[in-house]
Amino acid sequence: AILEVNGNLSCRCVKTTSDYISPKRYESIEIRPVGSTCRRTEIIIKLRTSSKVCVNPEAPWVKKLLKRIPWGKRR
Amino acid sequence: AILEVNGNLSCRCVKTTSDYISPKRYESIEIRPVGSTCRRTEIIIKLRTSSKVCVNPEAPWVKKLLKRIPWGKRR
Repeated sequence: AILEVNGNLSCRCVKTTSDYISPKRYESIEIRPVGSTCRRTEIIIKLRTSSKVCVNPEAPWVKKLLKRIPWGKRR
Repeated sequence: AILEVNGNLSCRCVKTTSDYISPKRYESIEIRPVGSTCRRTEIIIKLRTSSKVCVNPEAPWVKKLLKRIPWGKRR
C-alpha cells in the first residue's frame, strides 16, 4: 500500500476531462507515459492562453488526436 | 521573408536527432504541433536525467512511438 501511494506521488493530474478541445487552442501536448513517477499515462494540453488541461487518455478524441498529428504539414 | 523568420522565432529545437532513445529513458514527451509560434512540428523528449532531446518527427521510430503509447497499461 505504501508503494502504491509513493508510486503516484508524482502524478501531475488530479482530475482529467474528456471534453473535446479544438486543436486550434493547443500550444503543446505533453505525454507522460506510465512510469516510475506515476502509474498512469497522463496527457496534459497546454492552451495558447498558457493554462494547462489534463485530458483523459481513454477519451476517443484524445486517442485520435495523436494519430492525426500533422507531422510535416502546415495547418 | 520577414513573416517566415517571425513564424519560426518560437521554435524550440535548433536541431533534431533521429537516433533511437529507449522509452525507459523518457520522463515525458512534448509535442508542439505546427502553429502560429513555429511552422514545424516539434517533439521534445524529456529524459529521466532531466535533459531534453529534440527528435525528428519524421524518424520512423518516433512515428511508431506515438502509436504504441501504453495507454492504460503499466510498464
